[in-house]
Amino acid sequence: MKSSALSQLGRRTGPPAISWLIQLALTRPNLISLAAGFTDNPSLPVDDARAVLDEILASPRTGQPALQYGSTAGDPLLRELTAERLRHLDGAKRGAAAYAVERVVITHGSQQLLYILAEALCDPGDIVLVEDPTYFVFLGIAQSHGLRCRGIRLNEDGIDLEQLEHTLAALKRSGELRRVKLLYLVSYYQNPTGITTSLAKKVAALQILKRYERAAGHPIYLLEDAAYRELRFTGGDVPSALTAKGFSERVIYTGTYSKPFATGIRVGFGLLPEPLRTVVLNIKGNHDFGTAHLLQKLLARAIASGRYEKHLVELRARYAAKAAAMHVAMKKHFPAAVQWRRAEGGLYHWARLPARVKTGVKSKFFQAALARGVFYVPGALCYADDSSRSKPDGEMRLSFGSAGIPDLRTGIERLGTVLRRFIKE
Amino acid sequence: MKSSALSQLGRRTGPPAISWLIQLALTRPNLISLAAGFTDNPSLPVDDARAVLDEILASPRTGQPALQYGSTAGDPLLRELTAERLRHLDGAKRGAAAYAVERVVITHGSQQLLYILAEALCDPGDIVLVEDPTYFVFLGIAQSHGLRCRGIRLNEDGIDLEQLEHTLAALKRSGELRRVKLLYLVSYYQNPTGITTSLAKKVAALQILKRYERAAGHPIYLLEDAAYRELRFTGGDVPSALTAKGFSERVIYTGTYSKPFATGIRVGFGLLPEPLRTVVLNIKGNHDFGTAHLLQKLLARAIASGRYEKHLVELRARYAAKAAAMHVAMKKHFPAAVQWRRAEGGLYHWARLPARVKTGVKSKFFQAALARGVFYVPGALCYADDSSRSKPDGEMRLSFGSAGIPDLRTGIERLGTVLRRFIKE
Repeated sequence: MKSSALSQLGRRTGPPAISWLIQLALTRPNLISLAAGFTDNPSLPVDDARAVLDEILASPRTGQPALQYGSTAGDPLLRELTAERLRHLDGAKRGAAAYAVERVVITHGSQQLLYILAEALCDPGDIVLVEDPTYFVFLGIAQSHGLRCRGIRLNEDGIDLEQLEHTLAALKRSGELRRVKLLYLVSYYQNPTGITTSLAKKVAALQILKRYERAAGHPIYLLEDAAYRELRFTGGDVPSALTAKGFSERVIYTGTYSKPFATGIRVGFGLLPEPLRTVVLNIKGNHDFGTAHLLQKLLARAIASGRYEKHLVELRARYAAKAAAMHVAMKKHFPAAVQWRRAEGGLYHWARLPARVKTGVKSKFFQAALARGVFYVPGALCYADDSSRSKPDGEMRLSFGSAGIPDLRTGIERLGTVLRRFIKE
Repeated sequence: MKSSALSQLGRRTGPPAISWLIQLALTRPNLISLAAGFTDNPSLPVDDARAVLDEILASPRTGQPALQYGSTAGDPLLRELTAERLRHLDGAKRGAAAYAVERVVITHGSQQLLYILAEALCDPGDIVLVEDPTYFVFLGIAQSHGLRCRGIRLNEDGIDLEQLEHTLAALKRSGELRRVKLLYLVSYYQNPTGITTSLAKKVAALQILKRYERAAGHPIYLLEDAAYRELRFTGGDVPSALTAKGFSERVIYTGTYSKPFATGIRVGFGLLPEPLRTVVLNIKGNHDFGTAHLLQKLLARAIASGRYEKHLVELRARYAAKAAAMHVAMKKHFPAAVQWRRAEGGLYHWARLPARVKTGVKSKFFQAALARGVFYVPGALCYADDSSRSKPDGEMRLSFGSAGIPDLRTGIERLGTVLRRFIKE
């Protein structure tokens, strides 16, 4: 048998970008991983989860429905709490149409929703606009579906609007605008850079997209991935794109309860305009006809009881302390030529090395760091394949999510030792 | 904006076949539903789930890993228990290669695995061979992906091998054999007919498929969906297709822990040959990078502790009693011209009406049943669109899963009243 029976998608789909890194961490336990986007084990709400599950399963009245199938769209109470919570976060009026409970879909992690959205909107060869750099698993979805990505440069407060405009204009000229389906923004404490997009930029981006819709012949959506919104350390919350007046039919908002509560409890959500909501539900009907009901009941009760909020307050303080410890260690051990912004939320610092030092998995620097017992996510993995620019490869994503403070300090110290070997000042 | 931004898949994907029926059940609570494939609420293992979760979450040592991300392939212990359990069920030797733990993938219900397999193997226009009739959600996946289905008639012990051969020969003649990727069999207490495929038939089917591989230019897989295998009332277990000597590289086996334990805990599994296993994991990495870890830990502990088996024994007795009650009521209330086989497992009776009585959603019979306060899944929904035969529409899928015995009796009595109006004897 010479050939395999695989589909085009099956042939295209590569291994996850960091599967090799994860394997590395498992096989060499003495390595300090600054790569993983895991939350840290001691932060996980074991007692809260136990108490809530115990309440749910204490009686058949609440226990049986939790162990039964639910609906494809999700548990009605969790959908209601989700809509209300988001409306409150956004400071929107009661009854605001953008936060109608009908718009809420509960998914098996927000990852599942990103996947289904790609399926619902994009054919092979279609174009998605992404931040440069962006979330690498989204790039994996795009690669698997044969999509083309165009990277839009990131400034301190989000994408470069001029480049967005320039890219759309160029695609219009080349007759490819009809292939553009969405702009994907990881808008809060972005993975990997930590950058938060201002509301003004989100509104301006929506206005720009709108201007190109006629030439595209169809809506161009803003997909706002707010996965890290709740992991805020300092500063105020930024309203979501749902607050942009007149644009609620163009904004797809996705969020997650996994990272703010427990990653072992995979529950994400989205707020979607029609006809997307219906199509997403039809597709999800084929994926799984509904997210595990028990986990939805767990989260609904954790939120309704206030345990979720309480845990979140603790989690923020915990990550803030870890981010600070990492930042201080970086200041102490990294050469001055290495640049980063102190994290204000999320799980990552993004460090830029002087131009001549490469950070890729095959680079001398990466190998030297490994030999010294520490590793990170090479920046190049977070950039889309986009032939219109060369892929930067002098950055590192440094996560303070999974390791404890002592390991973070040791890891940064080790990395500093290697950096000083490569960067003579 | 005239056009939508939807993909081909987004445009193709219809609502689930029975979404209308589910809606009906929700809006008219006095209706007795013999349609839903739900398990029944009183059967759900509330105390077991509570005890097991309480154990897991009693200490940080076991609680924290359960609330953390796992790997894409699944929890190592659950994978090991799954492989061992299946090897034992199949009566295979210790160390048999077909049951190697590496081959096991844990998924968000077995539905997710069926979906990913369709993605991994099939391009639009490809052909899947299915039982006639078959599981309607699989038909939904096929429709969504633009696949063509060919139905193979079902006899008492599984598909008609002559028709399988005939269909493959015809596809070879028409030059379409290269589009054939798999034969999908719901091999135990089939949804919807209740038929179990004999091992001899599975082996013979594999041999037939093998003979056409050269002309196809690639492997043609047997996808054995064993979702109902554990819900056996009478008779012995039938070994799976994994026991067919020399064919372990052509068999994809899928199963579920949701139906035998709790549908609110969505955990399925599969045993897959390479390169499919790797490709499925790559795709699952994009879907969700792993099934909710807490649910996997719950099941692993339920199985390891013996609670799962104990529950299964009770569940079998419970469904056997419900199946018997339905069968007896059917004998009492249905006209002699209605045919069915007494269920030996699973959740369904499949009843065939005399040729002149149609059972479709728009039929007078279906409407009369509704008016009488009872409904079922019309048989036609379980047949693939296959232009090579007309779609039968004189059958009903009657589920004894969700309703209690009194409702089953009343529902069948009501249905009997309507049947006697349509069938004069």
